Parts: sequence; structure tokens; C-alpha cells
Amino acid sequence: MIDLVEQFMAEIEPYVIEQRRKRHGYPEIGFAEYVTTYELSEQLTGKGFSLFYGTELLTSEERMGVPSDEFLKTNEQRALDKGVPPAFLEKMKGGHTGLAAVLDTGRSGPNFAYRFDIDALPIEESDVAEHVPAQQAFRSQITGMMHACGHDGHAAIGLGLVDYLSKNKDRLCGKYTILFQPAEEGGRGAKAIVDKGWLDDADFFLSGHVGLHDLPAGTVAAATSRFLASSKINATFIGKSAHSGLEPNEGRNALLAAASATVHLHSISRHKDGATRINVGTLHAGSGRNIIAEKAFMEIETRGETNQLDEYMQQNAQRILQASASLYDVELELEYVGKAISTSADLKFAGIVERACASSKNLKIVPDLAIGASEDVTYMIERVRERGGLATFMIFASPLPAGHHHPRFDYDEQALMAGLETLIRTTEYLLKEDGICESLVD
Amino acid sequence: MIDLVEQFMAEIEPYVIEQRRKRHGYPEIGFAEYVTTYELSEQLTGKGFSLFYGTELLTSEERMGVPSDEFLKTNEQRALDKGVPPAFLEKMKGGHTGLAAVLDTGRSGPNFAYRFDIDALPIEESDVAEHVPAQQAFRSQITGMMHACGHDGHAAIGLGLVDYLSKNKDRLCGKYTILFQPAEEGGRGAKAIVDKGWLDDADFFLSGHVGLHDLPAGTVAAATSRFLASSKINATFIGKSAHSGLEPNEGRNALLAAASATVHLHSISRHKDGATRINVGTLHAGSGRNIIAEKAFMEIETRGETNQLDEYMQQNAQRILQASASLYDVELELEYVGKAISTSADLKFAGIVERACASSKNLKIVPDLAIGASEDVTYMIERVRERGGLATFMIFASPLPAGHHHPRFDYDEQALMAGLETLIRTTEYLLKEDGICESLVD
Amino acid sequence: MIDLVEQFMAEIEPYVIEQRRKRHGYPEIGFAEYVTTYELSEQLTGKGFSLFYGTELLTSEERMGVPSDEFLKTNEQRALDKGVPPAFLEKMKGGHTGLAAVLDTGRSGPNFAYRFDIDALPIEESDVAEHVPAQQAFRSQITGMMHACGHDGHAAIGLGLVDYLSKNKDRLCGKYTILFQPAEEGGRGAKAIVDKGWLDDADFFLSGHVGLHDLPAGTVAAATSRFLASSKINATFIGKSAHSGLEPNEGRNALLAAASATVHLHSISRHKDGATRINVGTLHAGSGRNIIAEKAFMEIETRGETNQLDEYMQQNAQRILQASASLYDVELELEYVGKAISTSADLKFAGIVERACASSKNLKIVPDLAIGASEDVTYMIERVRERGGLATFMIFASPLPAGHHHPRFDYDEQALMAGLETLIRTTEYLLKEDGICESLVD
Amino acid sequence: MIDLVEQFMAEIEPYVIEQRRKRHGYPEIGFAEYVTTYELSEQLTGKGFSLFYGTELLTSEERMGVPSDEFLKTNEQRALDKGVPPAFLEKMKGGHTGLAAVLDTGRSGPNFAYRFDIDALPIEESDVAEHVPAQQAFRSQITGMMHACGHDGHAAIGLGLVDYLSKNKDRLCGKYTILFQPAEEGGRGAKAIVDKGWLDDADFFLSGHVGLHDLPAGTVAAATSRFLASSKINATFIGKSAHSGLEPNEGRNALLAAASATVHLHSISRHKDGATRINVGTLHAGSGRNIIAEKAFMEIETRGETNQLDEYMQQNAQRILQASASLYDVELELEYVGKAISTSADLKFAGIVERACASSKNLKIVPDLAIGASEDVTYMIERVRERGGLATFMIFASPLPAGHHHPRFDYDEQALMAGLETLIRTTEYLLKEDGICESLVD
Repeated sequence: MIDLVEQFMAEIEPYVIEQRRKRHGYPEIGFAEYVTTYELSEQLTGKGFSLFYGTELLTSEERMGVPSDEFLKTNEQRALDKGVPPAFLEKMKGGHTGLAAVLDTGRSGPNFAYRFDIDALPIEESDVAEHVPAQQAFRSQITGMMHACGHDGHAAIGLGLVDYLSKNKDRLCGKYTILFQPAEEGGRGAKAIVDKGWLDDADFFLSGHVGLHDLPAGTVAAATSRFLASSKINATFIGKSAHSGLEPNEGRNALLAAASATVHLHSISRHKDGATRINVGTLHAGSGRNIIAEKAFMEIETRGETNQLDEYMQQNAQRILQASASLYDVELELEYVGKAISTSADLKFAGIVERACASSKNLKIVPDLAIGASEDVTYMIERVRERGGLATFMIFASPLPAGHHHPRFDYDEQALMAGLETLIRTTEYLLKEDGICESLVD
Repeated sequence: MIDLVEQFMAEIEPYVIEQRRKRHGYPEIGFAEYVTTYELSEQLTGKGFSLFYGTELLTSEERMGVPSDEFLKTNEQRALDKGVPPAFLEKMKGGHTGLAAVLDTGRSGPNFAYRFDIDALPIEESDVAEHVPAQQAFRSQITGMMHACGHDGHAAIGLGLVDYLSKNKDRLCGKYTILFQPAEEGGRGAKAIVDKGWLDDADFFLSGHVGLHDLPAGTVAAATSRFLASSKINATFIGKSAHSGLEPNEGRNALLAAASATVHLHSISRHKDGATRINVGTLHAGSGRNIIAEKAFMEIETRGETNQLDEYMQQNAQRILQASASLYDVELELEYVGKAISTSADLKFAGIVERACASSKNLKIVPDLAIGASEDVTYMIERVRERGGLATFMIFASPLPAGHHHPRFDYDEQALMAGLETLIRTTEYLLKEDGICESLVD
Repeated sequence: MIDLVEQFMAEIEPYVIEQRRKRHGYPEIGFAEYVTTYELSEQLTGKGFSLFYGTELLTSEERMGVPSDEFLKTNEQRALDKGVPPAFLEKMKGGHTGLAAVLDTGRSGPNFAYRFDIDALPIEESDVAEHVPAQQAFRSQITGMMHACGHDGHAAIGLGLVDYLSKNKDRLCGKYTILFQPAEEGGRGAKAIVDKGWLDDADFFLSGHVGLHDLPAGTVAAATSRFLASSKINATFIGKSAHSGLEPNEGRNALLAAASATVHLHSISRHKDGATRINVGTLHAGSGRNIIAEKAFMEIETRGETNQLDEYMQQNAQRILQASASLYDVELELEYVGKAISTSADLKFAGIVERACASSKNLKIVPDLAIGASEDVTYMIERVRERGGLATFMIFASPLPAGHHHPRFDYDEQALMAGLETLIRTTEYLLKEDGICESLVD
Repeated sequence: MIDLVEQFMAEIEPYVIEQRRKRHGYPEIGFAEYVTTYELSEQLTGKGFSLFYGTELLTSEERMGVPSDEFLKTNEQRALDKGVPPAFLEKMKGGHTGLAAVLDTGRSGPNFAYRFDIDALPIEESDVAEHVPAQQAFRSQITGMMHACGHDGHAAIGLGLVDYLSKNKDRLCGKYTILFQPAEEGGRGAKAIVDKGWLDDADFFLSGHVGLHDLPAGTVAAATSRFLASSKINATFIGKSAHSGLEPNEGRNALLAAASATVHLHSISRHKDGATRINVGTLHAGSGRNIIAEKAFMEIETRGETNQLDEYMQQNAQRILQASASLYDVELELEYVGKAISTSADLKFAGIVERACASSKNLKIVPDLAIGASEDVTYMIERVRERGGLATFMIFASPLPAGHHHPRFDYDEQALMAGLETLIRTTEYLLKEDGICESLVD
């Protein structure tokens, strides 16, 4: 078997890198991955997978933080312009992006599920010479959007895995579900997929993230602990506009309320029980220089090492937002637009992955690395576990020239190869381990 | 003469109101009044005036707070779509809007200059039933833009005056310069016109504003005092983005710096010497919820009852902005984008206008009302006065359902008629007073 | 008569200056003027006046902002140590300081009332060489206390007036009430005197303040306008202490609530109708460096050019204090401890004082100067006027090396002489004006 | 030996409890433990120990955060009144409190050092009925001071240990140094003892803290990890006073600068590398309600899980304080008044203590508990380790009705007995382990 995998890895490398760069050049943010979804579907064609998308993939109401109609429409138009067929687009309209690809071998065996997230971020990508995507001409083509968290690579790993499964489908048993998830950023997409039942019968759930730890490519954590729980809140302050010179006292200043809330949100006390986070990521307020601002809009997120710690942050944030409205006598509207829970991967995977990859020359498996961030994959992990399956979230480490969400974020593409190889070897190992799969030919 | 004016006022009323409503329906903000300028020029055609626009009107570099190229281009395209001839547009490109119309009678006599500002505001106009423009179907056709300060009416008064002067040109002497000024909001346009020399030989300078005091239409202040001096500042904070969950300490938070600056700007101490104002009108910061904000942009204005008081506010503002950058270890860029100085109209006009309008049945002249706001007409007044001329800024009071810069701002159109009548009668009076104008036929 | 007054002024000067310096050296703050009251009573002995003090002077419950029992007891003990007789002290105990001195001539005539405030401030007096009280060795003997508002001089003028009335009592008619008021600072004493009825039958009420305008000594304003209305608020935030290292989240931080309230109170919007003021004068919070502060105490004052403007400030302050408590989940206790209303002196005095002082070589009378500050004398002025009397508050201007309430505050003692002369001449003029007083010998 | 220790514990219990309660009733804060030091010396008399105090114990200049002369003098006078002999006091004057007691057996053997801190906190102790010290009449007799961190018990354990060593001195070998340290709160005393060389030749260093973990008494951690590094900063803002009504703009507001600094200090970003803390524990500002505050004083501390993290907090704090001064144009003075470094106890003690106490019926030894707080014992641990010794800091857990530094802080006195027993048994074990001590009789 080792030969098989090694050989496959050598063959597939150019394809994985090409697909990663293609995705990198066309970043789309959560629930607007229209082109991304379509182009992934094109790669999947003819490989023996059944494809599901639109409301087949997602429960519409369980999506969180869906962008405005106007934004979606602009992106839908762009997708048409970019060549997405109208019929394909029709099923995705209104922010129903992402794709499930299912390979059923017809032979009894375990159900595997894999998850790859595909969305980008509203960051303007750097164009300095040292930035590899700029240097090698696969930088973002869309102003203000960037794959600054590595999901371009996740999609590419997914395509590599599809190729492997396709090529080996005659010797495999069981069922293989590949989930290309939209809107991971902000914790907005996973719950809608879980709700649709896609994880209900998974025996093994494998997922992972590139980067996160600045270690040589090839280093892979078999599991991860310390997902931060996270809540996403939109706050809108609504006051009253007035001429700021003629009658300043007649206004009720929404911008000031938002400014004050921002400062106070960042001063929520540390908690003795562990790490917490708060961020006011965006603030937009006011309509003109000499007008008391009537409206202010903020995007906020809280995080905590445990669900309790996130709850602590969220409750404090809510009280502070309310009090800040009261400071300036303005109204407050709160909307909860995303959530990730805290969990840990099954630590059993430490041994499984280590044994599975023992013979690889490329991989250095470590049992567990901390993620220290939030991921809505936690909804999937929890569901799999509830139903008796085993779930892990791996880390495919890479040297990092700049942190995640930074305009110069980038990673060593060998980390993608390491991720793909680890997924393949772990899958093979699980199949062989107890002789589940009679058809399996070594 | 009285008969002449009374008769003219009755005839012109429908035209003035029609023009005001036309302008109201198509609001354009400062230096983007492309359609406005062109449509005014159309009204001026065939009336015996020479027209000057583009860099004939304005010194390009003396304009302040010119919008971004992108914004101007969008508006230029819209102007073309709306029927502005390419050749006309060409001269205005890059934010050279506004118009001077000159009538030279060829007979020796005084030089009169009149100023009417024509720009609108970035405010979304109300559509409630009580709001007259909504009710009578002349509400703004442009989303997010509104004539919420009465400049629509100023343009209409200007057109009425042009009509009067045109119709009477054979009995008048001297020279008449009508300035349709762009970009009064923010104090951005007047200085560039003054710099071009348009006020250098004015013997009499007449201007005014509708509204401001909630008094019955027909009440007109012959002069105004207490213009607030004002400075317009754009502040940009530049920090460093980072993933707010993974490495919050790696970011330098521009949004927090702006928020903190906002709160502190509003807490600059009152001054014993008189009224001061500060407003952070807009704040835009951040690119994503889970990204430490790299950039924040604020539009700020200060005001003071005297130039010294505005200077006090501005210096404090500058120190606070710098210190706020330092609080969060971010960079600050400051740009000064508008300025109005403090002045008063010549109080001699109290008697002149009173006597000029004594016989009118419609007007109630009061000597002087406080404006309590900023106006860049002050640059014009100062220039006229330096060169030995007399200058006034009148107030054409009106009942006000809501304050200036409010989404339901509106006024009684009879206030426009009162304004026009006052300007005409004062002009006639000044001509006759010392028998300057031999040709004048009563 | 002129000779009489001039001669008296020359004779009394050393006494007035000596008394001013004596008072300057022994400053006592509001409701703790135990030694001051007693030493004034000593000066009044044997001059034909009846003395009233303790609850004869003040309605106990109408006093505002009475210091703590502990503070009063310390000061009462000091008064005993300083030689105040126990029986005299007994009547003043618990903060019943101040004195009324009444001279009844027995002859029918008008009732005159005069008011002199006598309290000092909790400021450490400067000891630099340029500071005259330091240079000439009459600097405050009490650490942390200082006559930094001129009330030392007011008391001295009052004693000079007593002397004049006493020496002339056989030629005068009517009744003369001299009120030495405690606790003017913070607007805490006047209302309690008014409530006791001392102003109910005054035909003429004369009062004034040294300094305020930096003009040559001898300049006297016959009346003053623009008293600021003012409210004094004490705010206490009560949270919960906790170890700041071990369990920071368990505390509720009263210090942070107070800090935040402070910043926001200073950012209440300016008001279009006129001048407003806010000050958080003191803030004391916390019990130890590594303890989350359980308690924070603030002394706040608001002011407004009109009662409405002060009300605007006060209501905003109240909302902000409440919201700040809510920001940090702490409790708030508010106490209203002082108030001054807005009023103006009777402008009729402009003419009266001018005529009264026309023959003086020392005085330059101006009709009216703005005070721009708060004074609880306004309660007295309002009461006199309600009952049909005439009331004024004069300004005895002086060059000022430093502002009021500054550690180097001082004034030209000739301003006291100007004040005394103006009071005497105005009194004589009012008596003579309509021949009210038959006994009056010129 | 077991019998010996068990028997000793039973006999000494009443004495330890009596001494704890005596100390509880007379709390003195850091560098003012005059009575405490003297009363401890009385208990040590006649037990064969040499006593060292004053500058024999401490390097004067290495003490941090010494209270004001005035405060020390008041406490010195109280000590005299309370019966401390003048000659004893003389050596302690100026804040040279604490005591070293040395027992030299004269037989070769290891050097043991033990540290017990003795200072209290400026907290007003609760008097509610449930609070045991109130109930059982040993509550603090000093208003505003309280042993709210358990150092009363530490002193009592120290006395119990002295008694044990004294009674067994004929069978022991080596040297025993008992350090009663002043001013642990704020990290102000340990460095001055270390500097004097008291830890330079210690082979074994044993210390510990009562409470910290709410576990049954008898639970003892053999070592502790995660001491937070900590810095203590005093900040003084100096502005300019002015009358807040007459000329608010003339002041420079130190109170506002401190308030703003407070809010911003609490908003320093969390750090990815671990726990951090910040606290503004006290803030005192301003001299009067209607005076712009000239001066504000704050006591601040930062903490970090590592020295680097504390450094991060301290550098941010410093920048924020400086920027806050700049916000309000005031001056800043910073003083560094205390510091504790981060370290961990030697984990070898886990096995040592476990074995040493295996036979005890009262003790449940756990290897290591996190402290999560700061302790200047870290200076001692580091010094011992530099010189090749072994050092530990134990935790003597106890049920806690309220957290440390809370007005109702208390603990189970059996935790003191557990602490004492652990120290004795560990000492005996270390002596016997390698047969170091020939004289040792079991």
C-alpha cells in the first residue's frame, strides 16, 4: 500500500498546487462562493461521485450571518458573467453555496466524512514582492478579498482526496462523503450542514487546517484541543441626526455610543478560568461631517476557551452594548449572526494517525496541537460523537511569513501535500485495522 | 418701481418653485454637482449673461476636500447618462463644478455680486407622509442624497434673480455677477472662487440663506452676525491587522484608536470666551469581524464663535488625535479639508434693506439675526470688505418642520420669494440711492 | 456728605486690610467657619448691632452638602483650641455657622440687607515668592485650605460697612441687616438663610464679589447678569472587591465605572441655547493596588446659563452616571448637595449706582458685567424681588495674578475699598433720593 | 519519629490557633508591621534562636513602595503606645520591619531556610455574623486594616515551626533560618531580604501559602507552578487647576487623564501566549468640586504568566499612561514600586513531600497546584536555585467562604496545622533521607 500512496502523492502534486492557486486567485466570502462552488463541481465531474448542493446541502434557516440581498445579487451577477450556468446558479441563489460529494462503493464498510471549508476574507491582499502569490502571479483578482486563512488549500486537499478515492474506488468499501463547506469564517455555515443530517451516520470524521503553527511543512497534529467557543454579534445603534453646529443638543449620537461601546467591550475583565477574546472588527457610522450620526453598525465577536467563558464574554458584551446606548440615549438592536462551540478532537486519533503514517518519509506526526481559535467544525465533531462516531481535526503545520488574516498570509504548499497524505493514510489504516473491508487489496 | 417688482414677483413665482423642486429631486454633493451645473446653465441660456465654469470659476488647488477620483468618475458617468453633453462635462471633470454668470450692462455703475450655493448632503430623505417633498412627489431621486439644507432653494432664487436682471437689463447700469457656488457644505468651495478673483471688484455683495430661524416666511434679516469659524479635518489611523483569536496581541488596533479619539474629542473643555463645537460625523473602520482593524477613517469638524475659539478646538483636536494614536500604538494621518472663518455682515445693511423694502407688503425686515453656524461665504465677505466693498449675508426665515441636515428638513417656499424680493429691492435701492445709475427708469 | 465718606474711607482702610489678612490666614470651608464666625462676632461687639447665629440664622434642613460629622467635630475641637468659648460654639455645632447682624435705627425708613460670604476652599495655597500673601506673611496657616475666591475680603468689607453704619447710626433711618453667609462655595448656604425669612422684608438688597474681571481696582459694576445656574451632585459607585490576580472576573469594578462616567460626563454635547459647564472635581476610589475597587466617590457639578440649560446638563449627567454603573454592573447612589439658580441683578441699579458714586474720585462705575459663574446669592435676589424689593450683585474688579480657585489667587486690596465705598454711597443715595429719611443730615 | 510529630502537633495546636488569632486582631500593612515584629520577637525569646532585624534583615534601598514618612510615623507612635520598647522600635524606624531567627545546631548538616510573610491589607473587615473572626471575637481591631490574605496564619505556622525546632534542637543537625518577611503584598519586601544574602547558602528553601484552592483542609500541594510575574506602578498626573465655571479652558485636567488612562489600561489586548492581568486599584484625584483637578494619583499593577507577558503588559501600560497625559495636556510621573518575577517551585519536591508525609493521617499531598497569582517569594526561590539549592512553595488548601482580599476572607485553621505538619515532616525526611545528620534520633 505504501507504494500506492507514495506514487499517488507524486502524481497528484501538480494538480493540488494548481487547484490551490486557482482558488487563491478567486476568493469569495462566506455564502457568496458561487464561482468557487461551481468550479469545484466541475473538478468532481466524471469521478463517480454524486453531487448535492443548494438546499440539498444546507438548511436555509440555520445559516447565520447571511450577507445582504444586494451583496448576494452583485455576486450572483458576477458568477453569471464568469460563466456559471444559470441553472446551476439558480439552485445556489440567496447564499446557498457549498457542495457535498458522495462516493458509495456499494460494499459494506464504514462511513467516512471529510470536511473542507472554502470561503475567503474581506482583506486586500498584499502586493509586495516578497509575497509569494504576488511574486508568482496567483494573487487575488478581486479587490478587497483574499484567501488569508488557507481555505484555498483546504479545497485543493479535498480535490486531491476525491481523486484518490475515485482512482481506488474498486478496492475500497464503505461510503465517502466529502463536504465542501461555505462560510466557516464567522462560524456561519457548519450548523446548517449538520442540521441537514450529513454527519448523522459518519463512523469517522476527518478534517483539518493548514498553518496555525509555524513549524516545518510535514509536521501534522493528529488531533487538536482547545477550540475556542465563539459568538458573533452585530450591533446597530440608532440615534437622531441633527446639524452639529446649529443644534448639537438636538441630536442623539449613535457614533459616540458605538465608539464608547468599543472601548468598553475591550475592557471586559480577564477571567480566572482561562483564555477569552473580544474584537470589534468593524465599525461604520455617520452620514456626513456636520451631521450628528444617526446610525452606527458594529461587527463584534467574543471567544472563550470553554463555552462558559464565551458565555461570560457574551453576557458582558450585551450589558455593555445596552449601557452604551443608554450613555448617549440611543436605541440598540442586537443580532446574533454566528456561533462556534468549544470542543476537542478525539484523542484516540493520536495513536491511530501515528500508526497509520509510521512508514511515511514525509510526515512527522505529533499527537495534539492547540488551535487557540474558533472553528464551526466543532458542530460537526459534536454531532459525530453524539452518534457514536470518532472525529478529529488535524493541523497541517507550515512556516508562516505572516499570521492568519494578514494581507501577507501565505504557507508552504508542501503542507497541503502533508495534509492530503495524512488523510489518505489514516483512511486506509482505519479500513484495514480490523479487517473491515474485505475488498481491500494492499 | 414698486409696481414693477410686485408684478414680477407674481409672474416669477411658479418658475422659482418649479426650479426649486427640480433641484430638490436631483441632489448632488459638493464638487459632484455635474447635472446641477449643467441644468442651471440651460436656464441661463439666452438671457444675456456670459457663463464661466470649470477652471474659469475655480482655482483647482484651492478647493478643499475634493471627493475621491472613483466617486467623481461614477458621478461623471451618471451625468453623461443623464444627458450632460460630453463637451460641457469635459470642462467640469475632476470636480470643477459651479457656474458664474455675468451681465455687463455696458453702462457705468456699481459692480454687484451675488452668491448662491448649490450642493446637497449625503442624507437619505424621509418618505413619511407629512414630509412635503414626499407628499408632493419631488423627493430626492438619488438614494442617500438629499437637499437637507435649502441650497435647492438658493439655486432657485438665483435663477429668479437672473430672470429679473435679464428682463430689466436695458434700464440698469453697472455689472452683475451671479455665482452658483459648489461645495459649501464642509466649507470647501468658496475659497477657490475668491482665489480666482471673482470678488475683487465687487462694490456690493449680497447673499443669504433660507431657514435657520423658525419664523414666519417673509421675515428677513438684513444682515447676520456670529458666523462660527470652522475647520474640517480627516483623520486616518493606520495600525496592523491580525487574527483576533489566534494572536490578538500582534495587532495594532486602528478602530480602537478612532473610537477612543471620538470619545475624547467630544470631551474637549468648554471655553470661557464663547460657543465652540466639535463633531465626529463619520467613522469607518475595519475589514472583518475576526480581524484586528488595520485602518480607521474619521471626518471631523470643529467650530468656534471666533477664529480664536476654532483654533482652540482645532489644536486640542489635533493633540487628542495624536495621543489616541499613541494609546494604541498606531499611526495617524491628518488632512485639513475645509475651513470657514468667522466674520459678520456689514451692519450698514440693516438700514439699507429696511428702507429698500419699506413699501413691500410681503416682507418684515429685521436688522440682524444670529446664524450660529459656519459658512464659507465668510471668505467672500472678507475679500469684498478688504477691497472696500460692502457685503451682507441675509437670512430668509421660514417655519421649519425639522432642523437643517435632518431627513425631514423642509421649508415654506414663500421664504424663497421673500429672499428674491429682498435681493431685487435692495439692488434697486442701491442703484437709485445716490443717483448712480442715470439710465434707471422707475 | 462727600466729605464724610471720603474721610471715613481714609480712616477705615488699615482696619479693612488688617481684617482681610486675618481672615486670609485662617481659612475655613463651608459650614466649618467656627473660628471665622466667632472672630467676626468679636468685631461686631459694642457697635449697636444685635447678633443672631446658629439656628437663628439658618434652617438646619435647608443646608446642602453639610460635611461629615467627623470632619465637623475635628473643626469644632480646633475652634475650642483656638479660643472660641464653649457656649458660643455650642450654638454653632453640627455646621450652623455664619452670623446676622441687625441695626435698627428706630426711625421709619427702608430695610436694607447686605450679604457677605465667608467660606474658603480646600486648596493648598502657593508659597512662591511672587504670591503676595506668602511674601507679606499672611498666607494660610491651615494646610490644604485657602481663601482662593476672595471671601476673606468680603468679610472685611462687611466689617467696614458695620463700622460705617455704627458711626452714623444717629443720622440714619430704617433697618440694616448684615448677613455673613457660610458655605457659598458649592451653593450650600444661601437657601437656608432665605428659608429662615431674613430677606422677606428687604427693600434694598446689596451684595457683590471682588475680582472676576481683571480690570483696575476702582472699577465697579453696578449690576451683574448671567449668573450660571448650577447643581452639585455626589455620586457613589458600589461594586464588589476581589483579588485582581486570582479572580478578576469575580469583582465588579466601581473605580472603572467612575472613570468611565468621568470621561462621558465631560462629553455631554454643547447646547445651542448657551453656555453650559460640567466638572468632576474629585474622584476617590479603591482600597488597594491588587484589589478590584469596591467603591468610588465623585463630586460633580453642572452649570448652565439658564435654569433650563443646567437642567439639561443635570439630566444628561444623571443618565450617564446610571449607564456607567450599568457598564460595569455596579450600583449607583446619587445625592444632590447644592444648587444655585440663574438670575440677573435689577438693571435699575445701573443708574442708581452711577449717580450715587458720581462724585467719587476713586470709582469708575460700569453698568453691568457678566459674572459667568454660579452664586447662591441668586436665591436671595429672587426672594427680595418676589417680595417687591430691589436687588443687586456688584462686581468689585481687580487685577488678578491668577484665576479664582487657583493656588496663587490674589487681588488688589484697593478693590475692597472700592467695594465698601460703593456700598456706602449707594446706601446714602437711596436714603436721600426721595427724602425718605427725615433724620438724614448731610 | 511519627509518634514524635503526631504528638507535637496535638500539643502545639492551641498555641498556633491562639497566635493566628492574635495576629488577625492586629493587622499591620507592609513595612509598618512594628507591633507584629515585636510581638513575634517576644514569642521567639528563650528558644535558642538568634534574632536579626532592622537593617540586619533588609537592604534599605532595595525595599519597594515604602509608605510615606507621615504614615510610618503614625504607626511608630502607635507601636510605642502599644508597648513596643523604644530601643526595639529605634532599629525598625522608617519601615525596617520583619525578623530573621536563626538556629545553628553546631553540627554539620544542611542549611534550611523557611519564609513566612506577615503583612496585612488596607481592607475593612466584615462584621457580619457568619464571618468567623467576627463571631468568635478576633476580628481586626484596626479600622480599615485586615488580614485578608492569610499572612496571620503564616506567622502562626512560623511560630509553631520555631517551637518544634527548639524542642528538637538536640537531635537535629545543620542550620535553620526562619524569615518573617514584611511587605509581601505588592511584592515589596522579598528582594531586600535576598539582597542582604539571607538565601545565599540555603540548601533547602520551604515556604507556602494558606488557602488559594478551595479544597478540604489537609490537602497540601508539594509544589506550585505558574506564579504570575507582576509589576507595581504608581502614576501621578499633574495638570493645572482653574475655576471650572469661570474659565474651564484654563485648566489642564489631571482627573480626566487618570480616568481615561484607567479605562484604556483595562483594554490592553489579551496575549496569545497566556494569562495577563491589569488593575488600577486606587485612584485619588482633585481638591474640590468646582476646581479643575490639578493632581491625580493611581496605584496600578500588571501581571503575566511569564516575565515576558508581564513585560508586555507593563510596556503597554507605560505607553497608555503617557498617551493619556498627552490627551489632556498634563504631566506624568511614574514610579515603579514593586515587582515579583515568574518562576515555578522545584518539582522534585512532589516526590519528596509525598514520601515524607506518607504516614500522616491528616495530610493528602498532591504534587502541584497552580497559584495563578504573584508572590515575591519568587525572588527567594530564584536565588536559592542559582546557588544550587532546592526550593518549593507549597499550598495549604482550605475551604474559603470568600476569596482572598475580600472583607469576609477566612479559612479553616486546620489548614495551618496541615501546613506546619508538612513542613516538619519534609524537614525530617530531608535530614534522614541520605543519612546526612548523624545525630538524628528517630
